[in-house]
Amino acid sequence: MSSEPEIPVSKKAAKREAAKLEKLRRRQEQEEEEEEAATASMSLEEENEELSSNYGDLTRNELRSTSDPKAGNWKEAVQGKKRTDVSALEEEMAGSEVLIKGRVYTSRPQSSKVFVILRQSGGSTVQSVAKQPNVSANMIKYIKQLSCESVVEVIGDVVVPTNPVKGTSQEVEIEVRKVYCISRALARLPLRVEDAARSEAEIEKSLESGRPAVRVNQDTRLNNRVLDIRTPANQAIFHISDELEHLFRGKLRSMGFVSIHTPKLIAGSSEGGSAVFRLDYKGQPACLAQSPQLHKQMAICGDLRRVFEVGPVFRAEDSFTHRHLCEFVGLDVEMEIDEHYSEIMDLVDELFVFIFTELNEKCKKLLEAVGKQYPFEPLKFLEKTLRLTFEEGIQMLKEAGVEVDPLGDLNTESERKLGQLVLEKYKTEFYILHRYPTAVRPFYTMPCADNPLYSNSFDVFIRGEEIMSGSQRVHIPEELEKRAGESGIDVKTISTYIDSFRYGAPLHGGFGVGLERVVMLFCALDNIRKASLYPRDSRRLSP
Amino acid sequence: MSSEPEIPVSKKAAKREAAKLEKLRRRQEQEEEEEEAATASMSLEEENEELSSNYGDLTRNELRSTSDPKAGNWKEAVQGKKRTDVSALEEEMAGSEVLIKGRVYTSRPQSSKVFVILRQSGGSTVQSVAKQPNVSANMIKYIKQLSCESVVEVIGDVVVPTNPVKGTSQEVEIEVRKVYCISRALARLPLRVEDAARSEAEIEKSLESGRPAVRVNQDTRLNNRVLDIRTPANQAIFHISDELEHLFRGKLRSMGFVSIHTPKLIAGSSEGGSAVFRLDYKGQPACLAQSPQLHKQMAICGDLRRVFEVGPVFRAEDSFTHRHLCEFVGLDVEMEIDEHYSEIMDLVDELFVFIFTELNEKCKKLLEAVGKQYPFEPLKFLEKTLRLTFEEGIQMLKEAGVEVDPLGDLNTESERKLGQLVLEKYKTEFYILHRYPTAVRPFYTMPCADNPLYSNSFDVFIRGEEIMSGSQRVHIPEELEKRAGESGIDVKTISTYIDSFRYGAPLHGGFGVGLERVVMLFCALDNIRKASLYPRDSRRLSP
Repeated sequence: MSSEPEIPVSKKAAKREAAKLEKLRRRQEQEEEEEEAATASMSLEEENEELSSNYGDLTRNELRSTSDPKAGNWKEAVQGKKRTDVSALEEEMAGSEVLIKGRVYTSRPQSSKVFVILRQSGGSTVQSVAKQPNVSANMIKYIKQLSCESVVEVIGDVVVPTNPVKGTSQEVEIEVRKVYCISRALARLPLRVEDAARSEAEIEKSLESGRPAVRVNQDTRLNNRVLDIRTPANQAIFHISDELEHLFRGKLRSMGFVSIHTPKLIAGSSEGGSAVFRLDYKGQPACLAQSPQLHKQMAICGDLRRVFEVGPVFRAEDSFTHRHLCEFVGLDVEMEIDEHYSEIMDLVDELFVFIFTELNEKCKKLLEAVGKQYPFEPLKFLEKTLRLTFEEGIQMLKEAGVEVDPLGDLNTESERKLGQLVLEKYKTEFYILHRYPTAVRPFYTMPCADNPLYSNSFDVFIRGEEIMSGSQRVHIPEELEKRAGESGIDVKTISTYIDSFRYGAPLHGGFGVGLERVVMLFCALDNIRKASLYPRDSRRLSP
Repeated sequence: MSSEPEIPVSKKAAKREAAKLEKLRRRQEQEEEEEEAATASMSLEEENEELSSNYGDLTRNELRSTSDPKAGNWKEAVQGKKRTDVSALEEEMAGSEVLIKGRVYTSRPQSSKVFVILRQSGGSTVQSVAKQPNVSANMIKYIKQLSCESVVEVIGDVVVPTNPVKGTSQEVEIEVRKVYCISRALARLPLRVEDAARSEAEIEKSLESGRPAVRVNQDTRLNNRVLDIRTPANQAIFHISDELEHLFRGKLRSMGFVSIHTPKLIAGSSEGGSAVFRLDYKGQPACLAQSPQLHKQMAICGDLRRVFEVGPVFRAEDSFTHRHLCEFVGLDVEMEIDEHYSEIMDLVDELFVFIFTELNEKCKKLLEAVGKQYPFEPLKFLEKTLRLTFEEGIQMLKEAGVEVDPLGDLNTESERKLGQLVLEKYKTEFYILHRYPTAVRPFYTMPCADNPLYSNSFDVFIRGEEIMSGSQRVHIPEELEKRAGESGIDVKTISTYIDSFRYGAPLHGGFGVGLERVVMLFCALDNIRKASLYPRDSRRLSP
């Protein structure tokens, strides 16, 4: 059950492997002896180089982080030293020695010295300078050859430069004493992080200046996501996403919700529809859950009262749009209600106003980092979330000259238009539209008491795009069975679900929202792929 | 992107559906008129029944929770009233009226009255009594007919009974004034919650007494999980599981880790091995991730530095054992290391000692509820987690007369034996075994510097069972490629993974642990299925 799969190894294979490794070990020892001999002779050749132990690539043994090494230069130099974060470097530290792990961001060689900007996670940068007599000529030569994105460790002294450094996050500079390379990057990378970090405005400015900067397109980014996510904006996006999930969980737990995990492998065809991934489960037809819908409702029937789940959701979408993914992170909620489905909307209101407010406060710097590359206006939302009925929405559209089917669904265009109208009239980009026509909602949606053409359901919008659907659920087994059948679902395949309501079921409802979509729209990103670490869409299955 | 899949509805179909619903609505109105007429005539027949509005099943409109109802009796009775949790009922409330939502747990009719024990989530119970003249004879008759597990709302007065009530969690009693049924359970249930909640000791005692109690077997439980999870022990298990995940997340975030989500749909054959679910991804061969291994490492190469993920992990296991599932919740960690793989073990130590300590403190009542049905001893663990090398472990086994291959893996039996020996010698049931033979570890495991037959890896054990595997990873692309090839993996299918290390990679490592397995072993449950809400194993794909 460990997360590293046990790869089955037969005894014979294990022995073969052991013999092979023994051979490998002997060869390695030999290589190391040769390496040492070479180093020794080099030292003789370079007698004037007293500082050779102050730089170099890590040895194989050092990379293997042994506890009892034939300690290399690096090991000796760093042992027992605390590493300082680049973001923590400040003027008060002037004169003190620091050890920094970072990447070579840019390198600017001059005849007798070299400037290297070191970058760390999140985009903190500091300039370091290696010059004589602090370091040897050979060491400067070594540093000049370090490729961009290589991981290095630098020991040096913090100094306050006479002329302020431009283009780094930190104002101090590091006078290099020692440099070790942990991992060299290829000299020619598929994309440069510097290029990937550029805003559209910067690119346009560069065009005007006649020295056009590289524009890295979306596919190149995604194909080389490991490089792409090193940009400050991307680092920020995934930290915002983490914070958003954390706020979602924390707020719900404080309101008595419990986190559950429902299976993604399910029998039959899930909730129906064509957008389902099918597979063979040891001889049984199975599919990937399109949502935790059925199982989260069953958890309510199982007396868990208020549950939430954060987990992957699978949709075999054919549409290749800016806002659809084939796999995304679902934030799902299901709860008992006492009397009315408005209780669910009350929760949505409280939860998301809390999340947005906290994000704006806690993630100021992260949001700035995103905005620097992808400028955006902060989301406009009200303290008390606006609720309109579907009929009111239709009426607003009608008055604006947009005719839509009063018992049909809104298309993306009408949704966007309504978003504009709502913003103008109510000054909010976050609102709830409820009482949707029953005909356009899933079979488990409870119809309204006063008019079954409408239902106890709602959608939620950010900046004119839908992020969430929710409703009270039908908890009467006979009605549920009937409606599932009418929706073309093979009732047999969901019989355990329907049976759950035969054992006594509370009034209940809930909603589901996509994490990536909320992040995308909160930051007004133009593409959902920017909010997914490794996006999956109708064409993309890697990396 | 909402969690409720959009079921495509054509305009024509929508109109057809609308017409159908309109018909339905008319029919319903008719039915309701008839219903009302019937009620009216009934009221005439029962003139002496002044209290008929004090009980009854909810009307269809009430179930649909309309905001503007032809208000039913229930609606009028409960509107604006706060519901009281059963667990909050106490003597000080004597004399006050309360509104309680709960299930009929047991019902004990007597000639002129009826005792109903009401149960709420988590197993809180209170006795209610309906008797004349508080309520009418007809109402008592109505209550007697309520089936067990039906969901009801009771309005009544809190009283302190002269003779203490036996077998309920609360000592007060409720004198019933009004009762409404929200949802009736089938009279004959596939299992009784009372039976499912019984401990083995109670069953054995019942056998001695000659009145044998029902023993509900595992398959019956799992087939009817919605009823099974209503037992106090099961309610507690899933709250403990929630708390464990919360502690895991909170502690890691406080140490600078960020939560990520990696795709479960991946190209090729994942990390190799036969235990993989395959599927067709829009014409491309794909599989379900056996762990987030490759993608979490890539996140480290992408400068996220310290990441964790909680998400489903898929293993097409053939073995049907007490501790294997085909889908479980993986708790995964990956982190840069500065110098040595012991840094990962330091984290495991700090993280899990924190989790266990907090669980014991925060979940006292929940752990008691589990222990009441499944008695167990609290986990023995040290403040500073014991670390043994694999060689030391082998030596301990050898001294105890157990011969194992010094370069092979431990089987379940040897692991259990070693757990016993460690407990005797070191007084702990939680320990780390490290420096495993390289031949039995996955291809991405870093070999030891002093002896490549061993590796910078570890397993962690609770009560003699493995819960976790971890290691430093090979971050040298050439070595990784070579070792993957030797392990029989088609290197082409993981080329983006291997390429990640060509762009500069920090020293790093991590581990993975199964949530269900930790919960199972912390509570010494005998079967991992008890710790999974809807378990999936080599035979089971439902509910």
